[in-house]
Amino acid sequence: MTQRITTIQEMNAIIRTLKKEQKQIGLVPTMGALHDGHLTMVKTSLKNNDVTVVSVFVNPLQFGPNEDFDAYPRDIESDQAKLEPLSVDYVFYPSVEEMYPDPLAISLKVNRMAEVLEGANRPGHFDGVVTVVNKLFNIIRPDFAYFGKKDAQQLAIIEKMVADFNHPIEVIGIDTIREADGLAKSSRNVYLTEQERKEAVHLYQSLIKAKELYDTGERNSAVLINTIQAHLTKNTSGNVEDIAVYSYPELVEQPQITGQIFISLAVKFSKARLIDNIILKGDNHD
Amino acid sequence: MTQRITTIQEMNAIIRTLKKEQKQIGLVPTMGALHDGHLTMVKTSLKNNDVTVVSVFVNPLQFGPNEDFDAYPRDIESDQAKLEPLSVDYVFYPSVEEMYPDPLAISLKVNRMAEVLEGANRPGHFDGVVTVVNKLFNIIRPDFAYFGKKDAQQLAIIEKMVADFNHPIEVIGIDTIREADGLAKSSRNVYLTEQERKEAVHLYQSLIKAKELYDTGERNSAVLINTIQAHLTKNTSGNVEDIAVYSYPELVEQPQITGQIFISLAVKFSKARLIDNIILKGDNHD
Repeated sequence: MTQRITTIQEMNAIIRTLKKEQKQIGLVPTMGALHDGHLTMVKTSLKNNDVTVVSVFVNPLQFGPNEDFDAYPRDIESDQAKLEPLSVDYVFYPSVEEMYPDPLAISLKVNRMAEVLEGANRPGHFDGVVTVVNKLFNIIRPDFAYFGKKDAQQLAIIEKMVADFNHPIEVIGIDTIREADGLAKSSRNVYLTEQERKEAVHLYQSLIKAKELYDTGERNSAVLINTIQAHLTKNTSGNVEDIAVYSYPELVEQPQITGQIFISLAVKFSKARLIDNIILKGDNHD
Repeated sequence: MTQRITTIQEMNAIIRTLKKEQKQIGLVPTMGALHDGHLTMVKTSLKNNDVTVVSVFVNPLQFGPNEDFDAYPRDIESDQAKLEPLSVDYVFYPSVEEMYPDPLAISLKVNRMAEVLEGANRPGHFDGVVTVVNKLFNIIRPDFAYFGKKDAQQLAIIEKMVADFNHPIEVIGIDTIREADGLAKSSRNVYLTEQERKEAVHLYQSLIKAKELYDTGERNSAVLINTIQAHLTKNTSGNVEDIAVYSYPELVEQPQITGQIFISLAVKFSKARLIDNIILKGDNHD
Protein backbone atom coordinates (compact mmCIF):
# COMPACT_ATOMS: atom_id res chain seq x y z
CA MET A 1 0.00 0.00 0.00
CA THR A 2 1.20 3.47 -0.85
CA GLN A 3 1.24 5.67 2.24
CA ARG A 4 0.40 9.33 1.77
CA ILE A 5 2.44 11.65 3.99
CA THR A 6 1.48 15.30 4.23
CA THR A 7 3.72 16.72 6.97
CA ILE A 8 7.47 17.18 7.08
CA GLN A 9 7.53 15.99 10.68
CA GLU A 10 5.92 12.66 9.80
CA MET A 11 8.17 12.26 6.77
CA ASN A 12 11.22 12.98 8.97
CA ALA A 13 10.17 10.28 11.42
CA ILE A 14 9.71 7.72 8.64
CA ILE A 15 13.06 8.59 7.04
CA ARG A 16 14.80 8.34 10.41
CA THR A 17 13.44 4.81 10.84
CA LEU A 18 14.36 3.83 7.27
CA LYS A 19 17.90 5.14 7.78
CA LYS A 20 18.20 3.12 11.00
CA GLU A 21 17.13 0.05 9.05
CA GLN A 22 19.79 0.98 6.46
CA LYS A 23 17.27 1.08 3.65
CA GLN A 24 18.41 2.59 0.36
CA ILE A 25 15.99 5.37 -0.59
CA GLY A 26 15.01 6.56 -4.06
CA LEU A 27 13.21 9.89 -4.58
CA VAL A 28 11.17 10.89 -7.62
CA PRO A 29 10.23 14.59 -7.25
CA THR A 30 7.15 15.51 -9.29
CA MET A 31 4.46 18.16 -9.52
CA GLY A 32 1.83 15.44 -9.93
CA ALA A 33 -0.28 14.98 -13.08
CA LEU A 34 1.71 11.80 -13.42
CA HIS A 35 2.21 10.29 -16.86
CA ASP A 36 4.31 7.47 -18.27
CA GLY A 37 7.42 9.66 -18.12
CA HIS A 38 7.08 9.91 -14.34
CA LEU A 39 6.11 6.27 -14.02
CA THR A 40 9.25 5.20 -15.86
CA MET A 41 11.31 7.11 -13.29
CA VAL A 42 9.26 5.56 -10.49
CA LYS A 43 9.80 2.05 -11.87
CA THR A 44 13.55 2.68 -12.14
CA SER A 45 13.62 3.82 -8.54
CA LEU A 46 11.57 0.85 -7.35
CA LYS A 47 13.94 -1.52 -9.13
CA ASN A 48 17.11 0.03 -7.72
CA ASN A 49 16.18 0.98 -4.14
CA ASP A 50 14.65 -0.58 -1.05
CA VAL A 51 12.17 2.24 -0.63
CA THR A 52 10.77 4.75 -3.11
CA VAL A 53 9.29 8.12 -2.22
CA VAL A 54 7.39 10.05 -4.89
CA SER A 55 6.88 13.68 -3.95
CA VAL A 56 3.89 15.51 -5.41
CA PHE A 57 4.14 19.25 -4.91
CA VAL A 58 3.17 22.04 -7.29
CA ASN A 59 5.87 24.46 -6.24
CA PRO A 60 4.66 28.08 -6.49
CA LEU A 61 8.24 29.41 -6.46
CA GLN A 62 9.03 28.00 -9.89
CA PHE A 63 6.07 29.59 -11.68
CA GLY A 64 6.34 33.10 -13.08
CA PRO A 65 3.56 35.66 -12.50
CA ASN A 66 2.11 35.00 -15.98
CA GLU A 67 2.50 31.23 -15.85
CA ASP A 68 0.01 28.48 -15.15
CA PHE A 69 0.39 27.92 -11.39
CA ASP A 70 -3.35 28.14 -10.69
CA ALA A 71 -4.30 26.15 -13.79
CA TYR A 72 -1.65 23.46 -13.35
CA PRO A 73 -3.46 20.09 -13.20
CA ARG A 74 -3.85 18.76 -9.64
CA ASP A 75 -5.45 15.42 -8.80
CA ILE A 76 -3.73 13.58 -5.96
CA GLU A 77 -6.28 10.75 -5.96
CA SER A 78 -5.63 9.99 -9.62
CA ASP A 79 -1.86 10.30 -9.06
CA GLN A 80 -1.88 7.97 -6.10
CA ALA A 81 -4.05 5.49 -8.02
CA LYS A 82 -1.24 5.27 -10.59
CA LEU A 83 1.37 4.63 -7.88
CA GLU A 84 -0.54 2.03 -5.84
CA PRO A 85 -0.32 -0.77 -8.45
CA LEU A 86 3.46 -0.23 -8.67
CA SER A 87 3.76 -0.66 -4.88
CA VAL A 88 5.35 2.73 -4.35
CA ASP A 89 6.07 3.03 -0.63
CA TYR A 90 5.37 6.69 0.06
CA VAL A 91 3.78 9.69 -1.61
CA PHE A 92 5.00 12.89 0.00
CA TYR A 93 2.23 15.41 -0.59
CA PRO A 94 2.79 18.55 1.51
CA SER A 95 0.76 21.74 1.27
CA VAL A 96 2.32 25.04 0.25
CA GLU A 97 2.01 26.18 3.88
CA GLU A 98 3.86 23.07 5.03
CA MET A 99 6.77 23.69 2.66
CA TYR A 100 6.86 27.49 3.08
CA PRO A 101 5.47 28.27 6.56
CA ASP A 102 7.44 31.54 6.84
CA PRO A 103 9.07 33.88 4.38
CA LEU A 104 12.43 32.34 3.44
CA ALA A 105 15.42 34.14 4.95
CA ILE A 106 17.84 32.72 2.41
CA SER A 107 17.35 32.95 -1.35
CA LEU A 108 18.92 30.51 -3.77
CA LYS A 109 19.91 32.03 -7.07
CA VAL A 110 21.08 30.03 -10.07
CA ASN A 111 23.63 32.11 -11.95
CA ARG A 112 24.90 31.61 -15.50
CA MET A 113 23.26 28.22 -16.03
CA ALA A 114 19.81 29.78 -15.56
CA GLU A 115 20.45 32.73 -17.86
CA VAL A 116 20.00 30.68 -21.04
CA LEU A 117 17.28 28.62 -22.71
CA GLU A 118 14.28 27.96 -20.44
CA GLY A 119 15.86 30.08 -17.72
CA ALA A 120 16.02 33.10 -20.01
CA ASN A 121 12.36 32.62 -20.89
CA ARG A 122 11.26 31.98 -17.33
CA PRO A 123 13.10 34.37 -14.97
CA GLY A 124 13.30 32.92 -11.46
CA HIS A 125 12.07 29.50 -12.57
CA PHE A 126 15.25 27.59 -11.75
CA ASP A 127 15.72 29.54 -8.51
CA GLY A 128 12.36 28.09 -7.47
CA VAL A 129 13.33 24.62 -8.66
CA VAL A 130 16.58 24.44 -6.68
CA THR A 131 14.89 25.96 -3.62
CA VAL A 132 12.31 23.19 -3.45
CA VAL A 133 14.60 20.35 -4.54
CA ASN A 134 17.16 21.33 -1.89
CA LYS A 135 14.38 21.16 0.70
CA LEU A 136 13.11 17.81 -0.60
CA PHE A 137 16.64 16.40 -0.59
CA ASN A 138 17.03 17.32 3.09
CA ILE A 139 13.58 16.04 4.06
CA ILE A 140 13.77 12.71 2.19
CA ARG A 141 17.59 12.24 2.29
CA PRO A 142 17.52 9.87 -0.70
CA ASP A 143 20.49 7.88 -1.92
CA PHE A 144 19.28 8.31 -5.51
CA ALA A 145 17.06 11.00 -7.04
CA TYR A 146 15.47 10.70 -10.48
CA PHE A 147 14.90 13.51 -12.97
CA GLY A 148 13.79 13.43 -16.59
CA LYS A 149 16.15 14.28 -19.44
CA LYS A 150 13.24 16.05 -21.11
CA ASP A 151 14.02 18.93 -18.73
CA ALA A 152 17.69 18.74 -19.65
CA GLN A 153 18.60 22.18 -18.32
CA GLN A 154 16.91 21.38 -15.01
CA LEU A 155 18.80 18.09 -14.80
CA ALA A 156 22.13 19.83 -15.42
CA ILE A 157 21.35 22.48 -12.78
CA ILE A 158 20.27 19.90 -10.19
CA GLU A 159 23.46 17.94 -10.81
CA LYS A 160 25.50 21.12 -10.29
CA MET A 161 23.54 21.90 -7.11
CA VAL A 162 24.39 18.49 -5.74
CA ALA A 163 28.07 19.22 -6.44
CA ASP A 164 27.96 22.80 -5.10
CA PHE A 165 26.07 21.84 -1.93
CA ASN A 166 27.83 18.47 -1.42
CA HIS A 167 24.56 16.60 -1.17
CA PRO A 168 25.38 12.91 -0.57
CA ILE A 169 22.97 11.98 -3.35
CA GLU A 170 23.36 10.52 -6.82
CA VAL A 171 21.18 12.15 -9.46
CA ILE A 172 19.96 9.83 -12.23
CA GLY A 173 18.72 11.26 -15.54
CA ILE A 174 15.95 9.24 -17.16
CA ASP A 175 15.38 9.20 -20.93
CA THR A 176 12.38 11.08 -22.27
CA ILE A 177 9.31 8.89 -22.68
CA ARG A 178 7.31 9.59 -25.84
CA GLU A 179 3.86 8.92 -27.24
CA ALA A 180 3.65 6.41 -30.10
CA ASP A 181 4.02 9.28 -32.57
CA GLY A 182 7.08 10.71 -30.83
CA LEU A 183 5.58 13.58 -28.79
CA ALA A 184 7.38 13.82 -25.47
CA LYS A 185 5.05 12.96 -22.57
CA SER A 186 4.28 16.07 -20.55
CA SER A 187 1.68 17.10 -18.01
CA ARG A 188 1.12 20.17 -20.16
CA ASN A 189 0.08 18.19 -23.28
CA VAL A 190 -3.51 18.27 -21.96
CA TYR A 191 -3.58 21.99 -22.78
CA LEU A 192 -3.24 21.29 -26.53
CA THR A 193 -6.19 21.63 -28.91
CA GLU A 194 -6.87 18.63 -31.16
CA GLN A 195 -5.22 20.38 -34.10
CA GLU A 196 -2.18 21.40 -31.99
CA ARG A 197 -1.82 17.85 -30.71
CA LYS A 198 -1.46 16.68 -34.32
CA GLU A 199 1.10 19.37 -35.08
CA ALA A 200 3.07 18.70 -31.89
CA VAL A 201 4.51 15.52 -33.35
CA HIS A 202 6.73 17.78 -35.44
CA LEU A 203 8.74 18.94 -32.41
CA TYR A 204 10.40 15.55 -32.19
CA GLN A 205 10.42 15.03 -35.95
CA SER A 206 12.38 18.24 -36.41
CA LEU A 207 14.92 17.05 -33.82
CA ILE A 208 15.22 13.71 -35.64
CA LYS A 209 15.86 15.61 -38.88
CA ALA A 210 18.67 17.53 -37.17
CA LYS A 211 20.10 14.32 -35.73
CA GLU A 212 20.14 12.76 -39.22
CA LEU A 213 22.13 15.74 -40.50
CA TYR A 214 24.46 15.43 -37.50
CA ASP A 215 24.91 11.73 -38.21
CA THR A 216 26.02 12.54 -41.75
CA GLY A 217 28.73 14.78 -40.30
CA GLU A 218 27.16 18.22 -40.00
CA ARG A 219 28.77 20.09 -37.10
CA ASN A 220 27.63 23.64 -37.81
CA SER A 221 24.90 24.44 -35.28
CA ALA A 222 23.30 27.13 -37.46
CA VAL A 223 22.60 24.54 -40.16
CA LEU A 224 20.87 22.25 -37.68
CA ILE A 225 18.92 25.12 -36.13
CA ASN A 226 17.75 26.42 -39.54
CA THR A 227 16.59 22.93 -40.49
CA ILE A 228 14.52 22.66 -37.32
CA GLN A 229 13.17 26.19 -37.69
CA ALA A 230 12.05 25.53 -41.27
CA HIS A 231 10.42 22.25 -40.33
CA LEU A 232 8.52 23.72 -37.38
CA THR A 233 7.41 26.85 -39.22
CA LYS A 234 6.09 24.74 -42.07
CA ASN A 235 4.33 22.13 -39.96
CA THR A 236 3.01 23.85 -36.83
CA SER A 237 0.83 26.84 -36.00
CA GLY A 238 2.76 27.42 -32.76
CA ASN A 239 5.23 30.18 -32.12
CA VAL A 240 8.78 28.81 -32.30
CA GLU A 241 10.43 30.48 -29.32
CA ASP A 242 13.81 28.93 -29.01
CA ILE A 243 16.02 26.53 -30.91
CA ALA A 244 19.52 26.15 -29.56
CA VAL A 245 22.61 23.97 -29.46
CA TYR A 246 24.35 23.94 -26.08
CA SER A 247 27.06 21.86 -24.50
CA TYR A 248 25.83 19.36 -21.96
CA PRO A 249 25.91 19.51 -18.98
CA GLU A 250 27.86 22.81 -18.98
CA LEU A 251 25.11 24.72 -20.84
CA VAL A 252 27.37 26.84 -23.02
CA GLU A 253 26.20 27.78 -26.52
CA GLN A 254 28.06 25.84 -29.25
CA PRO A 255 28.20 27.43 -32.69
CA GLN A 256 30.40 24.52 -33.80
CA ILE A 257 29.80 21.09 -32.28
CA THR A 258 32.66 19.16 -30.70
CA GLY A 259 31.78 17.45 -27.38
CA GLN A 260 28.47 16.32 -25.95
CA ILE A 261 25.65 18.73 -26.77
CA PHE A 262 21.92 18.94 -26.66
CA ILE A 263 19.61 20.49 -29.19
CA SER A 264 16.60 22.03 -27.52
CA LEU A 265 13.49 23.75 -28.75
CA ALA A 266 10.41 25.42 -27.32
CA VAL A 267 7.13 26.02 -29.15
CA LYS A 268 4.35 28.15 -27.75
CA PHE A 269 0.90 26.87 -28.70
CA SER A 270 -2.32 28.68 -27.77
CA LYS A 271 -2.36 27.44 -24.17
CA ALA A 272 0.78 25.35 -23.77
CA ARG A 273 4.46 26.02 -24.18
CA LEU A 274 6.09 22.70 -25.06
CA ILE A 275 9.79 21.89 -24.89
CA ASP A 276 11.78 19.00 -26.27
CA ASN A 277 15.42 18.15 -26.76
CA ILE A 278 17.81 15.54 -27.98
CA ILE A 279 21.21 14.86 -26.44
CA LEU A 280 24.03 13.97 -28.86
CA LYS A 281 27.05 12.34 -27.35
CA GLY A 282 29.59 14.07 -29.53
CA ASP A 283 32.77 12.84 -31.15
CA ASN A 284 34.79 12.75 -27.93
CA HIS A 285 32.40 10.40 -26.24
CA ASP A 286 32.10 7.67 -28.86
CA MET B 1 43.87 9.96 18.40
CA THR B 2 42.45 12.82 16.41
CA GLN B 3 42.37 11.94 12.71
CA ARG B 4 42.95 14.77 10.26
CA ILE B 5 40.82 14.50 7.12
CA THR B 6 41.56 16.81 4.20
CA THR B 7 39.31 15.54 1.39
CA ILE B 8 35.53 15.52 1.08
CA GLN B 9 35.65 12.05 -0.41
CA GLU B 10 37.44 10.61 2.61
CA MET B 11 35.14 12.48 4.99
CA ASN B 12 32.11 11.12 3.09
CA ALA B 13 33.39 7.56 3.45
CA ILE B 14 33.93 7.98 7.19
CA ILE B 15 30.50 9.55 7.70
CA ARG B 16 28.87 6.73 5.70
CA THR B 17 30.47 4.18 8.01
CA LEU B 18 29.52 6.14 11.14
CA LYS B 19 25.91 6.40 9.93
CA LYS B 20 25.81 2.64 9.32
CA GLU B 21 27.03 2.15 12.87
CA GLN B 22 24.24 4.53 13.96
CA LYS B 23 26.68 6.87 15.67
CA GLN B 24 25.38 10.24 16.76
CA ILE B 25 27.58 12.95 15.24
CA GLY B 26 28.38 16.41 16.61
CA LEU B 27 29.95 19.09 14.42
CA VAL B 28 31.84 22.16 15.63
CA PRO B 29 32.54 24.37 12.59
CA THR B 30 35.51 26.70 13.15
CA MET B 31 38.01 28.79 11.24
CA GLY B 32 40.80 27.45 13.47
CA ALA B 33 42.85 29.67 15.84
CA LEU B 34 41.07 27.68 18.51
CA HIS B 35 40.56 29.24 21.93
CA ASP B 36 38.61 28.32 25.04
CA GLY B 37 35.38 29.44 23.38
CA HIS B 38 35.80 26.81 20.70
CA LEU B 39 37.01 24.22 23.17
CA THR B 40 33.89 24.70 25.29
CA MET B 41 31.79 23.90 22.20
CA VAL B 42 34.01 20.91 21.47
CA LYS B 43 33.64 19.59 25.02
CA THR B 44 29.87 19.97 24.83
CA SER B 45 29.82 18.03 21.59
CA LEU B 46 32.09 15.31 22.98
CA LYS B 47 29.82 14.93 25.99
CA ASN B 48 26.60 14.69 24.00
CA ASN B 49 27.57 12.70 20.88
CA ASP B 50 29.28 9.45 19.96
CA VAL B 51 31.58 11.16 17.50
CA THR B 52 32.75 14.76 17.23
CA VAL B 53 34.04 16.40 14.07
CA VAL B 54 35.75 19.80 14.33
CA SER B 55 36.04 21.52 10.98
CA VAL B 56 38.87 24.01 10.49
CA PHE B 57 38.40 26.09 7.37
CA VAL B 58 39.11 29.76 6.82
CA ASN B 59 36.30 30.42 4.40
CA PRO B 60 37.27 33.06 1.82
CA LEU B 61 33.63 33.70 0.90
CA GLN B 62 32.83 35.28 4.25
CA PHE B 63 35.63 37.85 4.14
CA GLY B 64 35.11 41.20 2.45
CA PRO B 65 37.74 42.64 0.09
CA ASN B 66 39.11 44.89 2.84
CA GLU B 67 38.98 42.30 5.59
CA ASP B 68 41.64 40.09 7.12
CA PHE B 69 41.40 36.88 5.05
CA ASP B 70 45.13 36.73 4.32
CA ALA B 71 46.14 37.82 7.81
CA TYR B 72 43.68 35.55 9.62
CA PRO B 73 45.69 33.33 11.99
CA ARG B 74 46.26 29.81 10.62
CA ASP B 75 48.09 27.07 12.52
CA ILE B 76 46.57 23.62 12.08
CA GLU B 77 49.31 21.92 14.13
CA SER B 78 48.60 24.12 17.11
CA ASP B 79 44.84 23.68 16.63
CA GLN B 80 45.10 19.91 16.43
CA ALA B 81 47.36 19.86 19.48
CA LYS B 82 44.51 21.45 21.42
CA LEU B 83 42.01 18.84 20.20
CA GLU B 84 44.13 15.71 20.73
CA PRO B 85 44.03 15.79 24.55
CA LEU B 86 40.24 16.08 24.42
CA SER B 87 40.05 12.96 22.24
CA VAL B 88 38.27 14.70 19.40
CA ASP B 89 37.62 12.05 16.73
CA TYR B 90 38.12 13.99 13.51
CA VAL B 91 39.46 17.33 12.34
CA PHE B 92 38.08 18.16 8.91
CA TYR B 93 40.67 20.44 7.32
CA PRO B 94 39.97 20.89 3.60
CA SER B 95 41.78 23.31 1.32
CA VAL B 96 39.97 26.15 -0.43
CA GLU B 97 40.32 24.21 -3.69
CA GLU B 98 38.71 21.18 -2.08
CA MET B 99 35.70 23.17 -0.89
CA TYR B 100 35.38 25.35 -4.01
CA PRO B 101 36.81 23.36 -6.94
CA ASP B 102 34.65 25.19 -9.50
CA PRO B 103 32.80 28.48 -9.58
CA LEU B 104 29.54 27.96 -7.71
CA ALA B 105 26.49 27.82 -9.97
CA ILE B 106 24.10 28.64 -7.17
CA SER B 107 24.45 31.64 -4.86
CA LEU B 108 22.97 31.74 -1.39
CA LYS B 109 21.80 35.15 -0.31
CA VAL B 110 20.67 36.01 3.20
CA ASN B 111 17.95 38.63 2.97
CA ARG B 112 16.60 40.88 5.73
CA MET B 113 18.45 39.14 8.57
CA ALA B 114 21.79 40.05 6.99
CA GLU B 115 20.94 43.67 6.33
CA VAL B 116 21.42 44.72 9.96
CA LEU B 117 24.22 44.80 12.54
CA GLU B 118 27.32 42.84 11.43
CA GLY B 119 25.66 42.09 8.09
CA ALA B 120 25.25 45.80 7.35
CA ASN B 121 28.92 46.36 8.17
CA ARG B 122 30.15 43.35 6.26
CA PRO B 123 28.23 43.04 2.97
CA GLY B 124 28.21 39.45 1.74
CA HIS B 125 29.63 38.09 5.00
CA PHE B 126 26.60 36.03 5.98
CA ASP B 127 26.08 34.84 2.38
CA GLY B 128 29.56 33.31 2.67
CA VAL B 129 28.79 31.86 6.09
CA VAL B 130 25.61 30.06 5.02
CA THR B 131 27.28 28.86 1.81
CA VAL B 132 30.04 27.08 3.69
CA VAL B 133 27.90 25.89 6.60
CA ASN B 134 25.36 24.38 4.19
CA LYS B 135 28.23 22.50 2.52
CA LEU B 136 29.66 21.35 5.85
CA PHE B 137 26.23 20.18 7.00
CA ASN B 138 25.89 18.01 3.89
CA ILE B 139 29.43 16.66 4.11
CA ILE B 140 29.41 15.84 7.85
CA ARG B 141 25.64 15.23 8.24
CA PRO B 142 25.77 15.91 11.98
CA ASP B 143 22.89 15.32 14.38
CA PHE B 144 23.98 18.37 16.38
CA ALA B 145 25.97 21.43 15.32
CA TYR B 146 27.48 23.90 17.78
CA PHE B 147 27.82 27.67 17.31
CA GLY B 148 28.81 30.41 19.74
CA LYS B 149 26.33 32.94 21.06
CA LYS B 150 29.08 35.55 20.74
CA ASP B 151 28.18 35.62 17.05
CA ALA B 152 24.51 35.95 17.90
CA GLN B 153 23.43 37.16 14.48
CA GLN B 154 25.25 34.26 12.83
CA LEU B 155 23.58 31.82 15.22
CA ALA B 156 20.12 33.22 14.42
CA ILE B 157 20.81 33.05 10.67
CA ILE B 158 22.12 29.47 10.84
CA GLU B 159 19.04 28.44 12.82
CA LYS B 160 16.83 30.02 10.15
CA MET B 161 18.81 28.28 7.40
CA VAL B 162 18.22 24.92 9.07
CA ALA B 163 14.48 25.71 9.10
CA ASP B 164 14.42 27.08 5.52
CA PHE B 165 16.45 24.20 4.10
CA ASN B 166 14.91 21.48 6.32
CA HIS B 167 18.30 20.26 7.46
CA PRO B 168 17.73 17.32 9.83
CA ILE B 169 20.12 18.94 12.32
CA GLU B 170 19.72 20.55 15.71
CA VAL B 171 21.73 23.75 16.20
CA ILE B 172 23.02 24.38 19.72
CA GLY B 173 24.06 27.88 20.80
CA ILE B 174 26.91 27.93 23.31
CA ASP B 175 27.38 30.77 25.82
CA THR B 176 30.22 33.19 25.21
CA ILE B 177 33.41 32.25 27.03
CA ARG B 178 35.28 35.19 28.55
CA GLU B 179 38.72 36.01 29.86
CA ALA B 180 39.01 36.51 33.63
CA ASP B 181 38.41 40.25 33.14
CA GLY B 182 35.31 39.68 30.99
CA LEU B 183 36.68 40.14 27.46
CA ALA B 184 34.95 37.69 25.12
CA LYS B 185 37.41 35.12 23.79
CA SER B 186 38.03 35.69 20.10
CA SER B 187 40.62 34.64 17.56
CA ARG B 188 40.93 38.30 16.66
CA ASN B 189 42.01 39.39 20.18
CA VAL B 190 45.62 38.67 19.14
CA TYR B 191 45.46 41.75 16.91
CA LEU B 192 45.06 44.07 19.93
CA THR B 193 47.90 46.24 21.16
CA GLU B 194 48.73 46.01 24.86
CA GLN B 195 46.88 49.24 25.53
CA GLU B 196 43.86 48.18 23.49
CA ARG B 197 43.75 44.85 25.29
CA LYS B 198 43.39 46.77 28.57
CA GLU B 199 40.63 48.94 27.14
CA ALA B 200 38.81 46.00 25.60
CA VAL B 201 37.51 44.92 28.97
CA HIS B 202 35.09 47.86 28.74
CA LEU B 203 33.09 46.22 25.94
CA TYR B 204 31.66 43.70 28.37
CA GLN B 205 31.57 46.18 31.25
CA SER B 206 29.40 48.52 29.21
CA LEU B 207 27.01 45.64 28.47
CA ILE B 208 26.86 44.78 32.17
CA LYS B 209 26.03 48.42 32.92
CA ALA B 210 23.15 48.24 30.43
CA LYS B 211 21.96 44.97 31.94
CA GLU B 212 21.92 46.55 35.39
CA LEU B 213 19.73 49.35 34.08
CA TYR B 214 17.50 46.76 32.41
CA ASP B 215 17.26 44.82 35.67
CA THR B 216 16.02 47.94 37.44
CA GLY B 217 13.20 48.17 34.89
CA GLU B 218 14.58 50.31 32.06
CA ARG B 219 12.90 49.24 28.78
CA ASN B 220 13.81 52.20 26.56
CA SER B 221 16.54 51.00 24.20
CA ALA B 222 17.92 54.50 23.57
CA VAL B 223 18.72 54.89 27.28
CA LEU B 224 20.63 51.60 27.31
CA ILE B 225 22.45 52.46 24.08
CA ASN B 226 23.44 55.91 25.31
CA THR B 227 24.79 54.43 28.52
CA ILE B 228 26.96 51.99 26.58
CA GLN B 229 28.09 54.68 24.12
CA ALA B 230 29.14 57.00 26.96
CA HIS B 231 31.02 54.22 28.76
CA LEU B 232 32.89 53.11 25.64
CA THR B 233 33.75 56.61 24.48
CA LYS B 234 35.14 57.44 27.89
CA ASN B 235 37.12 54.24 28.38
CA THR B 236 38.41 53.10 25.01
CA SER B 237 40.41 54.57 22.15
CA GLY B 238 38.51 52.40 19.63
CA ASN B 239 35.89 53.61 17.21
CA VAL B 240 32.45 52.63 18.48
CA GLU B 241 30.77 51.38 15.30
CA ASP B 242 27.49 49.92 16.36
CA ILE B 243 25.40 49.64 19.49
CA ALA B 244 21.96 48.16 18.97
CA VAL B 245 19.02 46.46 20.63
CA TYR B 246 17.38 43.79 18.45
CA SER B 247 14.83 41.06 19.06
CA TYR B 248 16.28 37.59 19.21
CA PRO B 249 16.27 35.45 17.12
CA GLU B 250 14.12 37.52 14.71
CA LEU B 251 16.70 40.33 14.45
CA VAL B 252 14.24 43.22 14.36
CA GLU B 253 15.28 46.54 15.94
CA GLN B 254 13.47 47.18 19.26
CA PRO B 255 13.12 50.83 20.36
CA GLN B 256 11.09 49.61 23.31
CA ILE B 257 11.95 46.24 24.87
CA THR B 258 9.27 43.61 25.36
CA GLY B 259 10.33 40.04 24.45
CA GLN B 260 13.76 38.43 24.22
CA ILE B 261 16.39 40.82 22.88
CA PHE B 262 20.10 41.09 22.52
CA ILE B 263 22.23 44.16 22.97
CA SER B 264 25.19 44.12 20.62
CA LEU B 265 28.15 46.35 20.04
CA ALA B 266 31.16 46.57 17.77
CA VAL B 267 34.34 48.52 18.41
CA LYS B 268 37.03 49.04 15.81
CA PHE B 269 40.53 49.12 17.28
CA SER B 270 43.65 49.81 15.24
CA LYS B 271 43.85 46.29 13.76
CA ALA B 272 40.85 44.42 15.15
CA ARG B 273 37.12 44.94 15.04
CA LEU B 274 35.69 43.33 18.17
CA ILE B 275 32.06 42.44 18.77
CA ASP B 276 30.22 41.46 21.91
CA ASN B 277 26.63 41.04 22.99
CA ILE B 278 24.38 40.09 25.81
CA ILE B 279 21.07 38.27 25.42
CA LEU B 280 18.27 39.33 27.77
CA LYS B 281 15.39 36.92 28.09
CA GLY B 282 12.69 39.56 28.32
CA ASP B 283 9.56 39.82 30.43
CA ASN B 284 7.65 37.18 28.45
CA HIS B 285 10.26 34.52 29.00
CA ASP B 286 10.70 34.76 32.75
